[in-house]
This record gives sequence, C-alpha cells and structure tokens, in this order.
Amino acid sequence: MAERIYLYDSTLRDGSQAQGIDFTVADKLAIAEALDAFGIDYIEGGWPGANPTDDAFFARVPKTRFAKVSAFGMTRRAGRSASNDPGLQDILGAGTPAVCLVGKSWDWQVETALKVSTSENLKMISDSLSHVINQGREAHFDAEHFFDGYKANPTYALEALSAAYEAGASWIILCDTNGGSMPSEVYRIVSDVRSKLPDARLGIHCHNDTEQAVANSLAAVEAGVRQIQGTINGIGERCGNANLIALIPTLMLKMGYETGVSMEQLKEIGSLSRLIDDRLNRVPNRHAAYVGKSAFAHKGGLHVSAMARDSRSYEHIDPALVGNTRLILVSDKAGRANVLNRLEQMGIEVSADDERINELVKIVKDREAMGYAYEDASASFELLARGLLGQLPRFYELLSYRALNECRVLPNSTQDTMAEATVKLSIGAETVMTVAEGNGPVNALDQALRKALTPHYPALQDMHLSDYKVRILTPSDATAALTRVVIESRDKNGHAWHTLGVSANLIDASNDALFDALTWYLMKQGLPSA
Amino acid sequence: MAERIYLYDSTLRDGSQAQGIDFTVADKLAIAEALDAFGIDYIEGGWPGANPTDDAFFARVPKTRFAKVSAFGMTRRAGRSASNDPGLQDILGAGTPAVCLVGKSWDWQVETALKVSTSENLKMISDSLSHVINQGREAHFDAEHFFDGYKANPTYALEALSAAYEAGASWIILCDTNGGSMPSEVYRIVSDVRSKLPDARLGIHCHNDTEQAVANSLAAVEAGVRQIQGTINGIGERCGNANLIALIPTLMLKMGYETGVSMEQLKEIGSLSRLIDDRLNRVPNRHAAYVGKSAFAHKGGLHVSAMARDSRSYEHIDPALVGNTRLILVSDKAGRANVLNRLEQMGIEVSADDERINELVKIVKDREAMGYAYEDASASFELLARGLLGQLPRFYELLSYRALNECRVLPNSTQDTMAEATVKLSIGAETVMTVAEGNGPVNALDQALRKALTPHYPALQDMHLSDYKVRILTPSDATAALTRVVIESRDKNGHAWHTLGVSANLIDASNDALFDALTWYLMKQGLPSA
Repeated sequence: MAERIYLYDSTLRDGSQAQGIDFTVADKLAIAEALDAFGIDYIEGGWPGANPTDDAFFARVPKTRFAKVSAFGMTRRAGRSASNDPGLQDILGAGTPAVCLVGKSWDWQVETALKVSTSENLKMISDSLSHVINQGREAHFDAEHFFDGYKANPTYALEALSAAYEAGASWIILCDTNGGSMPSEVYRIVSDVRSKLPDARLGIHCHNDTEQAVANSLAAVEAGVRQIQGTINGIGERCGNANLIALIPTLMLKMGYETGVSMEQLKEIGSLSRLIDDRLNRVPNRHAAYVGKSAFAHKGGLHVSAMARDSRSYEHIDPALVGNTRLILVSDKAGRANVLNRLEQMGIEVSADDERINELVKIVKDREAMGYAYEDASASFELLARGLLGQLPRFYELLSYRALNECRVLPNSTQDTMAEATVKLSIGAETVMTVAEGNGPVNALDQALRKALTPHYPALQDMHLSDYKVRILTPSDATAALTRVVIESRDKNGHAWHTLGVSANLIDASNDALFDALTWYLMKQGLPSA
Repeated sequence: MAERIYLYDSTLRDGSQAQGIDFTVADKLAIAEALDAFGIDYIEGGWPGANPTDDAFFARVPKTRFAKVSAFGMTRRAGRSASNDPGLQDILGAGTPAVCLVGKSWDWQVETALKVSTSENLKMISDSLSHVINQGREAHFDAEHFFDGYKANPTYALEALSAAYEAGASWIILCDTNGGSMPSEVYRIVSDVRSKLPDARLGIHCHNDTEQAVANSLAAVEAGVRQIQGTINGIGERCGNANLIALIPTLMLKMGYETGVSMEQLKEIGSLSRLIDDRLNRVPNRHAAYVGKSAFAHKGGLHVSAMARDSRSYEHIDPALVGNTRLILVSDKAGRANVLNRLEQMGIEVSADDERINELVKIVKDREAMGYAYEDASASFELLARGLLGQLPRFYELLSYRALNECRVLPNSTQDTMAEATVKLSIGAETVMTVAEGNGPVNALDQALRKALTPHYPALQDMHLSDYKVRILTPSDATAALTRVVIESRDKNGHAWHTLGVSANLIDASNDALFDALTWYLMKQGLPSA
C-alpha cells in the first residue's frame, strides 16, 4: 500500500500575490471547481477580510465533492484574546472546514517585524490555533520563515512548532518564505524536526527564488513531510510558489506515492494547467514539465530515428500517463526520418527510398538556414512537400499586387492614414483585378485577395486569420532586414493552421504566408484546382 | 580559497534543439561574444557538418577573450577507424580548441539504437577521444543516458566512462538525457562514480523534464562534479536544459564556489538573459529566478511595510549582487516616484510637486495599457516627458508620406518587387519633398527621410538603425492587429538608443519610431530646433 501525500493548493491565495494576477470572483469559483474535480485535498480560497474579492468568494464558496476549502489568515494580534480578535473572527466567519493560520518562527522577525516578545508570539500561536480547533475546524499552521529561523535559532523555531503542535494543529507546515533554501538544507532541517516532533504531521511550503521549489518540496517529502502546499503552474509572488503541476506526476509516477488524484484524473492535469492560463489570458508555456506542448517533442534527427526504435530512448515517462502526446518536429536538424514521419502523419504517401525525400530535406535545411521555420508552420511544410511530389493543387496565381500607404498630418497634428491594396490574379482561365482598403498594407492585401477569390471559392467565408507574427531575422540590418511572417488561420470550428513567408520585403513575406494560408484551406476542402 | 566550478554553455547547440528556436548565424556570433564577455568557460557553438547554420558559425567563429569554443559531435561510426570517420573529420575541421563527443553508456541503447556490440561501443569511445586528443584538442566526453544506463547496468555504464577516462578525456560529463532523474538519485550515482573513478574530472548535463534540472545539477556538484553544462534561460529540447542563469548566482552566492564569472560580471547576468530573449523576440519571464523583473517585487501591503524595516524579511539575497533591483508595487505614488527618478536620471530638471508630473504618469499608464512599453524605449519616454514640459526641440514636422509596394510576378515565377516612399516635411521655413526606394516600405521611408534631412543635419550621417522589432499586441485581430515597433539606433561610437511607435498600421508605427530615433539623436547633438 503506497503512502499518501496530501496536496494543498494556494493558487487562489498565495498565487494571487503575483504581479499581473488579478482573479475575479468568477475565476476563483471556476478554479476551485476544477481543483476539486481533479482531486486536490485542500483549496485555500483566500484571506477573509483582506479584500472584497476574497470576501465575495467565501460568501459563495462552492460545495466541493472531494476537497476541503481552507481560509487563510494570521494568528491573533498581540495583547488580545483569540476570541476577541477581529482578524480571527473574519476567518472563522468564512465557515470553511479548514483554516490555515500563519505565524512567525524566526525570533529576529518576531522582534523586528512584529515587535512583540518571543514568548508572547508563542502564546499568539497556541491561543489562535486552540480557538480555531474549538470552533470545530481542521487547523493548519504555516510556520513563516521557518528555514531561515531554524538556521538562525533552531531552539526558538522548534518552540514555535511545538506551540502549534501542543495546541492540537492537524498539520504544521514548514515555510521557506524567502525561497532561498537549498534541497540538501531542507532535507537536513526537516529530518531534525522529525526527530524532535516525531508524531506531528508536517507540510512544506516553498518558493522558487533559486528555481528549486519543486526539488525543495520533494526533498522535504523524502525527509518525511506528508503535505505539499503549492500553486497551479507555480504562480506566486516574486519567482512563484512550488508548481503542483510538476510535483504531482513526479510524486505518483516516479516516487510511488498516492495522492487524492487517481491515475485517470492525472490524465487531466494538462487541462487544469491550461485553465489557469486561460483565466489569466496567458499563452501556456510550451516547455512546462509534463504538460507543455513541447514536453515530449523531438526535433534532432538522431533522436527521431532512435525514437522510431523505442520510445524509452528519449522519453522519461509515457506521455499518455499525463494526457500528453509525442510531437515530431521538422526543422533544420531534420533528418530523413523526421521528414518521412511528418509526411506519414499528414497522410502523404511516398515510398521511404523516394529520391525526392532527399531533395525535400535539402530544401528544408537550406531554407531554415535562410530563416524559414517550418516547425511552427506545418501547413507551409505540407504545401512544400506536396509541390515537390506533384500533389499540389493551384487555386490561383498571383500576377501582381500593389500596396499603398498614404498618410497626411492634419492641422490638429493627428494623422489620417489610408492603406489600399490592388491584386491581379489568374483564377483558372480568368484574370481578376480587385482593390480594397485595410488598416495597414497587409490587412488591405488580405481584403483584396478575399474580394477576388471568394466569388470562386465561397468556402473562404468560413476561414479567418487569427494571428500574425513578425520576426526580424537579421536585426543588424535594421529596416533592410530579412523578415519572417507567420500567419495563424482558423476555420469555423476553431481548428488552426500555420503558414509562413520570408523575404527582405515585409509585404512580400506576408503575401507568401497569405498564399499558403488560403491554398492549404482550399486543398483541405477537397476543392479541385482552378 | 574557494573551489572552482567550470561552466559549459550549450545554448548554441543543445539550446537550439528547442521548438521555436531558430538562431541565425548573426544570432550565434552575438551570443558567443556575450558568453565570452560574461566569463563562461566553454562555449559549445554547434555540431559541425550537421546543418548550414552551424557550418557558417564555425567558419566565422569569433576570437574569444576568455572562453574556449567547443565543437560537438558523435563518437566514430561502428566499423570505421577514427581518423577515417567523416563525422569526426567535420568536427576537427572546425578548428576549435575544445571538442565534446557524445557516446552511449546504456547497454540497452547500444544494442537497440546503435545496433553494435557493447565492446565495439567501448572502442568507439576510446578511439574517438584518443584521435581528438592526438590532434591537440581538449576532449570532453558526454556520456549519453548515463543515469538511466547506470540504473539498468552500472558495470557497463562505468566501463563506458573508464574507456573515455583511459583515452585521456579532460572531462567526463554524466548526462541525464531523458531528464527523468531525481536529485537524490543523482547525488547517490555521482558519489558511486567518484568512488570508482576518483581522479576523473566529472561534469553534469541535466534536462528539466521534472522541473529539477537546476537541483539535479547542484546535487551533482555536492557529490563532487566540477563542470556544469547548461543553457541561458534553460532553453532546450522538450522542457529545456539546466538554466545557467539560475545556477550561477546560487553556486557563487549560496554555495561559495568560484566560477569564471567575477562578482562584477555577475551584475550583468540579467543583460545576458535578456540578450537571448531579444534574439528570439521573446518577452522575458518576469518571474525568472534572480533576473526576472518581479524576482524582487513586493506586492502585499504586509510585505512592503516589513521590507521598510529590514529587507532580509522577504529577500533571500541583495538584488544588487545580480544587478537587479527591488520593486515595490503599491499605488500611483510609486508611479510618481518612479517617474521622478527616471527624469532625474535623464538630467531633466523639474520640481517634485510639479502638476505636470501627474499628467505624465497618467499618459504613461494609459499608453502602457494600450501596449506602449516605455521601459524598453527610454528615448521615446524622454521625448514624451520633454514634450510635456515644453523642452522638446522640433527638427522637422511631417506633413505627409506615401509608401508604395509594387510586385510583379515574372514569367519564370520569380517576383520583382519595388518599394518606394515619398515624404513631405517642413524643416524650419522650408518645405521639402523627397522620394527614395528601399527593400521594403519601412526601409524606403527611412531612406526618404534621410535624403530630406541630411542636407540640413549632416550629423545624421553618423547614426544608423541597428535593430527593428515588430510585436503584435492584439494577436486575435490578426492582420488588423495593433502593432508595436521598437527601433534601436546607434551612433558612430556604437552607443545605442531605443524608440517606439504603436499603431494599427505598421507603417505608421514605424514612422513614429523613426521620428523619435532621429529627433532624440539630433537633440543629443545639442543642435538647435529648425
């Protein structure tokens, strides 16, 4: 029977301390629901009384299926009784089954920051926890600055823990508040604490200031801790908190622990991670451990041919265990094996010893040396491959285009700018000329192309451009630089594809990427060439 | 006397394996220069013979002041002599003082991936390293899959290391190729290796698949390893490599090791980190350990008042040691103090209670909400402030411009594109119209402006644009999106300044950034307004 590790999520409290994080009440409710569904043991919802958002959350706190909701706060103020402390009243007023109180365990902090005596601080800890327990709540004690405090004065730091333990705290959590501790220190200090308080249930709360919050948390588990406090994607003040998304798979798949998350639920960990990014309007980190889009991506040709033999060659776990998938990339480093693999995924039939594959590999390498990047533009790669293999339909030919940008400064110093584009295309036997305006030369070109093509290909009404990226490849040449444009397009179902263009002329590069975007879509509709 | 740790950077080789990373030759040369200036011991430039970019880099490899440049590659193929192996010939042909050869140390890999006998693999390792050493190069041996191999068959894994050691390798690097090892395993296995090969100089090469590459590298150092292989910002395949930017300050400031980086150079670590982001056109991670903009940011009111008492309360190191600064996130007041601070730094005299400061703070906030980013364009900020304070000289007024891009597809399917711009300016009492061509609309505009202005301001001959960056701020609107252009300019001494423009129209945004670039330079020459 595997030992159980308890997961305590502080995304909604400590996570929301980070710069740029502003959860609405709706965000908090949605995140709490997702954490509960995933199998998190404790959800710290906020600090009752600290701000209107947290109060509104606790007023509407959802019925959880599995998790216990926890309210965070401080031990009572100096010189007051716990039952008469307004802060504790707010915390208890939230009515949560669990409560987490933070208190000081570093004597220097007690004296300089709190400005109370070390003995009064111990009473503040025990009084506050006893009061919470008497109200029927499960009490957690966050020992703030515990590791720094222990290094400075181990006796006092342990006295603070004992005060909480003797008051009946269910969990005593050792906090590396400043995030500066090393895993070997954490292991040694937790082991010391375990020998002094062998029956206390210990937790760990780490910050990522040396990029070791995950390792510090796991070192604490190896030393006997059984609760981990962390946040989804490691969000949190400064460099963030311990990242539960990286911790949970390692605990379950590598260290053999049981958590509240089942093997089935573990497959949803990527969705949980992306939910937080969605709520924060952030682009997910494609390199995130376990859940990143690139976490199981293979680029080097050497790796890919070995992968084809056995996936253990370059994968530390089976990506399916965490609901992720393997990704084979085409690029500069591509060998034949990558390219063949990609063609197969695209449904392009070609024999493995076809001479034209070598030619394709060479073109990809040469173009990537110029600045093309096919790994981020697989639709353009597919068109290149089909072109070479004689399988590329032509829906239109560009004969010429003109893009004009005209700006006039008005007497009040504002600018009046007009962008206009003209295109001349041959579509089958027909020659078509159209003109359109836009709010920049590329937008005008896009409009003019659609105006010319939509009467022949009404399906184009169901696609649109959803992203447009420009990268200067030779920045030392400044405005004369080689430019790469990547366009993301989507169909009416939200399915996306990516195309690129590279040229010294930004408009030419954009035009090439537009051509590929339109052609790939029409090809996928199964439409005949013009 | 502190012990010395050697830093081996693989940003340009293993780092460039990551999805979305496509360094140009110019990028690689600039990064190598920066690594050398920072005090990195070894710079792995790439894999000679693997792709055109790496070949072009080695053909133009810079003279380093401090670092040794290293070329990466594989041990010889099976059934060939080392001196007759085309791969090794390419590697040696690069002419670098150091060479790093990767070879297999996991018997299962030797048999399934390489498909050679385990004894032939040992000969491949020793022959290849002997050959490299006989050519006068410093030889590093990367033992691929070492930790997985050691767990499966420790005897064979150690035989692979011994083969390299006995051949005379200067360094033997233990690679956690799949990134799945835990710090405690790494510590235990490195300790075993040390007891078996006590005189070998050992290195460590980790990947971040469990978010523990930094901790694994440091666990190896604690067990006796003296070389760390990693990359800047941890870029690399899948979840990335060990992040040297997080490792170096911890090694020097917390563990007491010496590296090739001096305490003065350590203050430049943030610039090195941002250089890589700039080259990749990425937004720096504000939560990065040590160098992130938020790494020493304090938001909670509780923290801020404690910080005012003693910074040790919430900071694990003094941010000045890594060239970073504390950031207090409070209110409009911090905004005012910040702005006053910046004006003082720019030598702009204004009284602290000047009403116009509030207006400036408001404009900056409004514009930053729109997408301006004055922190990366301080010349534009200075012009904005001077404009508001009535201290802005006007060297020219734009009356109108026109940028035209005309493309014709020739019978052989190549494109013939012409970009032309016309500007109409008033310079003092004069109205000037000029027209010029360029290799894109922005370049043509730059040329036309210079043609109009240089007769009046010959000093412009001594400045040039050195970088041009475009970022789409509202990507969901695609080609109709709001665009930010940042231009870097340099004078004849190489001194750089940055200006920006934001508009839905890319050409308008570029024109605004050009206006600021020219105006700021002329102002700094002390020239009178027209």
